[in-house]
Amino acid sequence: MNIIDNPQEVQKLCTQLRRDRKKIGLVPTMGALHEGHLALLKRAKETCDITVMSIFVNPKQFGKNEDLNRYPRPFEKDCQLAKEQGCDIVFAPIPEFMYPSNFMTHVAVDKLTSVLEGAQRPGHFTGVTTIVLKLFNIVMPDSAVFGQKDAQQVLVLKRMVMDLNLPVQLDIVPTQREKDGLAISSRNSYLTPSERAEVPLIYAGLIKARDAWKKGDRKSSTLIDCIRTKYNNASLFTPEYVSIVDTNSLLPLETISDTALIATACKTAESQTRLIDNIVLNGSL
Amino acid sequence: MNIIDNPQEVQKLCTQLRRDRKKIGLVPTMGALHEGHLALLKRAKETCDITVMSIFVNPKQFGKNEDLNRYPRPFEKDCQLAKEQGCDIVFAPIPEFMYPSNFMTHVAVDKLTSVLEGAQRPGHFTGVTTIVLKLFNIVMPDSAVFGQKDAQQVLVLKRMVMDLNLPVQLDIVPTQREKDGLAISSRNSYLTPSERAEVPLIYAGLIKARDAWKKGDRKSSTLIDCIRTKYNNASLFTPEYVSIVDTNSLLPLETISDTALIATACKTAESQTRLIDNIVLNGSL
Repeated sequence: MNIIDNPQEVQKLCTQLRRDRKKIGLVPTMGALHEGHLALLKRAKETCDITVMSIFVNPKQFGKNEDLNRYPRPFEKDCQLAKEQGCDIVFAPIPEFMYPSNFMTHVAVDKLTSVLEGAQRPGHFTGVTTIVLKLFNIVMPDSAVFGQKDAQQVLVLKRMVMDLNLPVQLDIVPTQREKDGLAISSRNSYLTPSERAEVPLIYAGLIKARDAWKKGDRKSSTLIDCIRTKYNNASLFTPEYVSIVDTNSLLPLETISDTALIATACKTAESQTRLIDNIVLNGSL
Repeated sequence: MNIIDNPQEVQKLCTQLRRDRKKIGLVPTMGALHEGHLALLKRAKETCDITVMSIFVNPKQFGKNEDLNRYPRPFEKDCQLAKEQGCDIVFAPIPEFMYPSNFMTHVAVDKLTSVLEGAQRPGHFTGVTTIVLKLFNIVMPDSAVFGQKDAQQVLVLKRMVMDLNLPVQLDIVPTQREKDGLAISSRNSYLTPSERAEVPLIYAGLIKARDAWKKGDRKSSTLIDCIRTKYNNASLFTPEYVSIVDTNSLLPLETISDTALIATACKTAESQTRLIDNIVLNGSL
């Protein structure tokens, strides 16, 4: 496995691989790899000839009061895990290589980024689309693999790919979960033991809404009440939002007639950890 | 020569050409071809295996009160001229193919776009960088050829290419001029005969400043005075700006010690035509 920190070097290598007709799969990550990332790597391995994983804790997608500095960076362990999955290239640049001092370009998807996570984290998605576009240009992948856990990110990136005519296929892998249902996230490591014991309720609330939908409930307000009632049992987290939205526009749905996304973000009381989760009704992202 | 309006079709064709190891040159235009564009086509022909010219009057780079509707669109004549230059592919999409109704992405270069043309034409450069990035993704050229006449555009696009790690070389061709020095522009066709007789003064002013610089004048204020004095002889145009700036930052220079860009935009009194021109001292863009 090649570990490279230089964007030009990766670009040159990937250009050669493409000339040799290799199908390249990219798995963009911020490191702190867990089962979720490993599922993305596995998907890339299954569908492509060459798997490239990027590890870059992207400062531009963190807000001023967010967890950029304490974000976990177990680089050697990450490389070991990537190698075990058969990853071919790890691209791990330092911030100065991605954002030199005179960097001044951004790419943004409007509308979709003003709601849900975008409303809570101003600038977050501009940071995401800018870095992902850079990674696409450096690696020039045929396929890029993302997790469904970041559902809004998936929809924003799909929009960017379409709007900018990017020659890349996005491949979305279902959210990986702990046995108790908690969506696996690098940020779970921030949780105190008592928070950890309680947060499986987040997914349980979503499941309860899905069950109600399966039984015929189509009104979003009913399903949202159902989730919020569940979350009222929690003493160590509070929901920032619980929303049911259209998977194209991300606008709230009053009634569920087609594919719908139920998305939530919750914040814990002790460690101030933000956790997101979602479920898709009647289709996929 | 292939004339194609469908982005997917051009992308597919260019992907195949790249697989066949052809070097692709792109000449992005808004049509209304003149000697300036023909020089760009010639450069692409000389340096690449396949020359693609795009013709697209890009609505996103026109302001609300600008000349989008009256911008000349002599499509058949343009195709004839392109063919005569040996152009291989003309890509001429309709606006709906480039900007479907749910289009919502933009790419922007900050700082560089708030001065000169950017100050006079808010949103103009965001329109330019967004469409050029789309064209790059559709055609995937090895080289893209632009004219020096749009000097700020060149510098903004160079910045975008660097910041986004785009695998494309920008190739800049000197401004083509009429015998009397007027920079050739599609917008020259708007000029009334009396305006046309007077506007060669625009370049004459720049030349006068360059001569002063050659003789040892290094103070920008002196050189700018020299140009403005020249323009005071004009009764049918007034300068919107006359600036001497650093070619990296586009910030004003007090003293010229390294490469400098003298740029001006003038507006005519009768036809309300905006004309831009520039000259580079001590180097190139």
